[in-house]
Amino acid sequence: MLDLAFTPDRRDGRPLYRQLGGYLRDLIEADRLPAGGKLPATRELAASLGLSRTTVSLAYDDLIAAGLLTAHVGQGTFVASRPQRTSPRRPALAAVESREFVWSGLLAARARALGVPGSLLPSGPEPPRFDFRGGQVDAESLPVGELKRAFADAIGSQLADIATTRDPRGWPPLRHAVARYLVARGIACGPDEILIVNGGQHAIDLVARVLLDPGDTVVMEQPGYFGAAVAFVAAQAHLVGVRVDEQGLRVDELARILRARRAKLVYTTPASQSPTGAVLSDERRRQLLALADDVQVPIFEDDYDSELRYEGAPIPALKTLDRAGQVIYAGTFSKVLFPTLRVGYVVAAAPLLQRMVLARWNADVGTNAVAQAALVTLLEHGGLERHLRRVRKVYAARLAALLAALESHMPDGVTWTRPRGGHGLWVTLPSIVDTDTLMRGASEASLAIVRGDAFYFDGRGRESLHLSFAAMPPAVIEEGIALLGQLIRVHTARRRRSAR
Amino acid sequence: MLDLAFTPDRRDGRPLYRQLGGYLRDLIEADRLPAGGKLPATRELAASLGLSRTTVSLAYDDLIAAGLLTAHVGQGTFVASRPQRTSPRRPALAAVESREFVWSGLLAARARALGVPGSLLPSGPEPPRFDFRGGQVDAESLPVGELKRAFADAIGSQLADIATTRDPRGWPPLRHAVARYLVARGIACGPDEILIVNGGQHAIDLVARVLLDPGDTVVMEQPGYFGAAVAFVAAQAHLVGVRVDEQGLRVDELARILRARRAKLVYTTPASQSPTGAVLSDERRRQLLALADDVQVPIFEDDYDSELRYEGAPIPALKTLDRAGQVIYAGTFSKVLFPTLRVGYVVAAAPLLQRMVLARWNADVGTNAVAQAALVTLLEHGGLERHLRRVRKVYAARLAALLAALESHMPDGVTWTRPRGGHGLWVTLPSIVDTDTLMRGASEASLAIVRGDAFYFDGRGRESLHLSFAAMPPAVIEEGIALLGQLIRVHTARRRRSAR
Repeated sequence: MLDLAFTPDRRDGRPLYRQLGGYLRDLIEADRLPAGGKLPATRELAASLGLSRTTVSLAYDDLIAAGLLTAHVGQGTFVASRPQRTSPRRPALAAVESREFVWSGLLAARARALGVPGSLLPSGPEPPRFDFRGGQVDAESLPVGELKRAFADAIGSQLADIATTRDPRGWPPLRHAVARYLVARGIACGPDEILIVNGGQHAIDLVARVLLDPGDTVVMEQPGYFGAAVAFVAAQAHLVGVRVDEQGLRVDELARILRARRAKLVYTTPASQSPTGAVLSDERRRQLLALADDVQVPIFEDDYDSELRYEGAPIPALKTLDRAGQVIYAGTFSKVLFPTLRVGYVVAAAPLLQRMVLARWNADVGTNAVAQAALVTLLEHGGLERHLRRVRKVYAARLAALLAALESHMPDGVTWTRPRGGHGLWVTLPSIVDTDTLMRGASEASLAIVRGDAFYFDGRGRESLHLSFAAMPPAVIEEGIALLGQLIRVHTARRRRSAR
Repeated sequence: MLDLAFTPDRRDGRPLYRQLGGYLRDLIEADRLPAGGKLPATRELAASLGLSRTTVSLAYDDLIAAGLLTAHVGQGTFVASRPQRTSPRRPALAAVESREFVWSGLLAARARALGVPGSLLPSGPEPPRFDFRGGQVDAESLPVGELKRAFADAIGSQLADIATTRDPRGWPPLRHAVARYLVARGIACGPDEILIVNGGQHAIDLVARVLLDPGDTVVMEQPGYFGAAVAFVAAQAHLVGVRVDEQGLRVDELARILRARRAKLVYTTPASQSPTGAVLSDERRRQLLALADDVQVPIFEDDYDSELRYEGAPIPALKTLDRAGQVIYAGTFSKVLFPTLRVGYVVAAAPLLQRMVLARWNADVGTNAVAQAALVTLLEHGGLERHLRRVRKVYAARLAALLAALESHMPDGVTWTRPRGGHGLWVTLPSIVDTDTLMRGASEASLAIVRGDAFYFDGRGRESLHLSFAAMPPAVIEEGIALLGQLIRVHTARRRRSAR
C-alpha cells in the first residue's frame, strides 16, 4: 500500500478534491507513485485522510480523465503506465486519428419530424413559484409507506420470479390484477387481452408503430393531447383535427371528415377531454361507435385519468360499449399514482395486440418488472383504492380553489371550462390580450403556464391557456391566479393604449 | 348490510368461488339481494364466511362479468339494476350494434416486418429442466437485501423528487453516477452526454429511429445479436452481414462491404461478440475506427456485458479510442443485475443524442424513476461492485463446468468457442447432425436450447447452437450437456444409418 500524507490547505482557493488531485499528480509526476501501483480504495483513503469519499472519488476521476490513473471495476485504481499529458480529458489508450464526425447528413428523414413542445421540457434550475403545467401530481399525497412496502415486498419475496419473467405482454399477476381492476370499471376482459406498457405515451407510440405507415391519416381532437400529436407526427402520419365543445369531440364534424377522407385511426379522450376536461356525452358515444362501425375505423380511447372524478357518477369507458373490438383502450397509473412510475396498459383486439406485443419487444423488451410486481400489491390489497379516495378529496379542493380564484381575479372577457374531474382546465382570453407578452411576463414572475398552442398541431390556440391545479395547494393556486389576473389586466391595458 | 349465510359444500364438485357465485346469483334472481344494494367488501365477506379474499373476489368478478353486479373503484360492489342474462361476458350498459372489426387490412406495412425469434418467447407452463437459453442471469446470486434497501430508500427519502422529475435524459443523479462508472472504465464523458434508456434493446431501437430511413443499409455481425436484427428490420433497414472469427468482427470484410455500399450504421459487440464470445482484437479496433473515419459511418458499440470478464485484463471499450465522436456506446444493467430491471444508458455525440432524447420522449417519456434512483445507491455505495465480484466467481465456475462438460460429452466433430467472459458460447455441429430432429428431441427431454439460426437474419446457422451457462449451477450444466451429447450421438447414428 502506498503511503499518502495529504493535508488540506484552507488558504488554497481550490476545492478539496482538486487539492488532493494536485497532490497525487505531483507524486505521480515525481515517480513517487510508480506506474502500475495500486491506489487505496476511495473508502480507505477517505477514512485515513479524514475526507469524504466523494472528495476522493472526484480527485481520482480527474486523474483518470487526465490519463494519470486507470480504474477497473472490481479491481481498483492504478497508476497509469504512460501518462498522456497532452490529452487531458482522455484515458491512456492508443488513439486513432480522425476527423470530427458530421452527423447532420445522416439523421433519418423521420427523425426531422420529432418534437416536444418546449414549454413541457424542464425549465431552469429553480422550480417555478407557481407551477400550473400539466403532467404533474401532488407528490405530498403519495402513499410513501405503502409504495415502499410494495416495492420492498416485491423484491424481498419474489425477486427470482421478477428477474426471470419473460412474457413480453407483461408480468402475468399484473395482467390479472388489471383485468380485475377493469372489470370493476365495466370493461370485461381477460389477462390475455392486456398488454402492459410504459404509460399512456407508450401505448400511443406502439399503436402508431403497428397501424401507421407514412402518409396515413389520423384524426384527433383539437385542442388535444400534444403527446399523441408528436407520436403520430413522428410516425409520419397526416393529422386532421376535429373540434371539441362542452360535450367533448364533435362527432358530427368527425363524420364529415371521415366521409371525405379515409383515416387509419381516431384518437380521443372521452372521459376527460385533454385539455378542456369535457366529458363525451352518452349520445355522442353511441354516434361515435356507429360512425366508426360505418366507416370501419379503429378508435383509440385514451382513458388517462377517469379515476379522478370529483362529483357525479363514475364515467364508464367508451370501450364498455364496443362490441366489435374496434376500440383500443389505454389506461395508466401515471395520474392516479405518479408519472415517472411509467406503467400503463392497453386492451385491444387480438390481431392488433399480437403485433403490439412484437413491436413492444422490439422497442425495449418489457416494462420494469419490480414496478409491475409492486403494483399488483397496491391493486390487490386496496392500497390504490385508499390512495384514490384520499387524492380525490385533495384534487377536488384544488379544482374548487382554482375555479373560485378565476371567478375572483379574471378580468371581463376571460372564460374557462368547469370540469368535474381530472387535473386541469382550459382558459380562453379575449383577443385583445397579447399572449406573447403575457407569457414573458408570467415567466418573469415565476409563473409556469402552458399556452394553448401546445395542444394544437397547426399553431392555433395562442389565445388559450391550460392550467393544471394538481401540483399546488389551494392557497398557492389562489395567489398564482391573482398574479395571472393582474398580468392579464396590465397587458390588456397596455395593448388598448398602444392601439389608440 | 345484507345478511349472507353461505356454507361451502365439500361434495359440490365446483371450486369454492363458483359455489359462492351460484349462491349470490340465486339470491339476486330471487330478488333477496335488491337492485342497487351494496355488497360487503371482499375483505369483510371473506372474514365473515371464513373464506380467502381471492375466492370472494373471483365470485364477484364472475357476477360482474355476467352483468349481475356492478363495481366502481373506491365505491364498492352493487347489485346491478337490470341483470342482462343474455350477454354473460358483457357489463350492463347500452350497446351499439356493429359488425366484427377486421384488422388485417389496417396493419402498417412496417408492422409486417416485426418479429421475435420463436425460441426466445416463453415456452410452456413448466420451466425446462435444463435451460441453456440466453438473456438470463443467476437469480439466486442477486443481492436481494441490497436491492430491497435501495428501492425502499429511494421511495422513503426521495419520492417527491422521483415522482416529479421531468428531465427526458434521465434522473440527473443516475446520469452523474453512470458518468463516474464509465470514467472508471476508461470512457471520459459527462452526465450531459448520457441518455438513460430501458436497457440495451431500447438503445438500439432509439438509434434506429433517429438514424434509419426505410431502405438504409446497416452492417452487423453474423452471427449477431438477434434483438439488433429485429429492431433494424422493423425500421425497414436493409441488413448486410459481416462474418466473425476468433478475433471478432472481420474488419477486412467490413472494409470491402463499406467500399461497395454506403451504410448508415455498423453494429458490433466488441467486448464479447454476441453470440460467439470473441473479443475484438486491438489491431482490429484501430482498423475499424480508421475505416469508419475513412467512409464516415457511425459505429454502434453494444457493450452489454463487458463487466463479466473472468480472466485476463478488463477489456476497454471501443469508445475509449473514439476521438471523432462517431461511436455510439450503449451499456446496460440487464446482465450485471437482471434483465427485467430495464435500465441502460447511451453515450453519444450531441447532435445524435439530442434527437434520441426527443425520440425517447415520444416513445414513452422516460425510464421508471424508482429503479433509476435505486441504481444510484447501488452504484455509489459499492453494492454493484460487490455484486459483480460475487457473480464473476459464480459465472466463471459455470463457464468452466460447461467447457469441461463439452470436453467430456461431445462426440467427435463438434467444436465450440472458449470465451473468457459473458454468459454463453457457440457450438458448431458436424453437418451430419439433423438439427431439426435434434431440437425436437431436446424439447422432449426438457432441454431448452437456442439454435444458431436465431442469430442469423438469412436462415443460416442451423448447424450451430448457442449455450448460455448463466441460469444453472455446474452440476445441472454437466447433466444437461451429457444429455445433449447423447441426443447428438443418437441423431447422428440414425442419420448415418438412413444415409446408407
